[in-house]
Amino acid sequence: MRILGIDPGLATIGFGVIEKDNYNFVPIDYGIISTPKDDPFPERLLTIYQAVGSLIDTFNPDAISIEELFFMKNITTGIPVSHARGVILLACYQKTKNIYEYTPMQIKLALTGTGSADKHQMQYMTKSILNLNDIPRPDDAADALAVAICHGQTNQNLVDNLIK
Amino acid sequence: MRILGIDPGLATIGFGVIEKDNYNFVPIDYGIISTPKDDPFPERLLTIYQAVGSLIDTFNPDAISIEELFFMKNITTGIPVSHARGVILLACYQKTKNIYEYTPMQIKLALTGTGSADKHQMQYMTKSILNLNDIPRPDDAADALAVAICHGQTNQNLVDNLIK
Repeated sequence: MRILGIDPGLATIGFGVIEKDNYNFVPIDYGIISTPKDDPFPERLLTIYQAVGSLIDTFNPDAISIEELFFMKNITTGIPVSHARGVILLACYQKTKNIYEYTPMQIKLALTGTGSADKHQMQYMTKSILNLNDIPRPDDAADALAVAICHGQTNQNLVDNLIK
Repeated sequence: MRILGIDPGLATIGFGVIEKDNYNFVPIDYGIISTPKDDPFPERLLTIYQAVGSLIDTFNPDAISIEELFFMKNITTGIPVSHARGVILLACYQKTKNIYEYTPMQIKLALTGTGSADKHQMQYMTKSILNLNDIPRPDDAADALAVAICHGQTNQNLVDNLIK
């Protein structure tokens, strides 16, 4: 099963593609989509929409796993990021109905066994599970790989996390 | 000049189309787009995206005026509505670059001369400016007509309110 993980954002969107073969996770590709902050806001949304659509066309995932915007530090950041996540969900949904979302706590729990894991523990586990030589960079790509792994680890709960 | 006003939302999106001819405003059409709350969230985003695209194809506006999500009562409502507004902006931007946004206060000021006007004053002025026999219904459609009128009234400030 091929899983595309997405860490939503406006300026930087992380993505990570993994192949799950029984209990084995193989990294296929990972990276970021960036939108220039000087671009008009709707132009940035269009860039994200098109780039996410291209990713899905390229990697043809069986499922998409996207982080939920759960606790927002402040509403000022939350509004534009939610606009961006809206067009990400739209781009995904136009290609596949298999979209799942996980809270930061669910992702931490799936990778480390504890919901209070810090960034370093998460990145270490991501590297380890994917048999990578180094911590994946940048951070947003590592986060996207983590949400993809989370879906692979917890797919016994598919129905619970299917976006509805 | 034909203006499409949009009052963004998730369950209900208001729209209002007006024609501005010098200082005269003529209502062309108004109403709402609704999304069933039992539909999966990304399905609702897709419905909104397609409906807004159809509106623009039907009415071919010279400009689109959309209310800014300025003060959000709470983040729980703000996140899904911001997702919806993201796909609305995307749908608009794919058809025209002439998208303008106004805060609730700017809209009140443009229609009534005071930023503290209440809903009844706003609806009365909308009815009056458009020479309608009755207050436009439902409320979201009236709000959308108001944001369209606001753009027509304040287009000396075009550059300031062009979304950027």
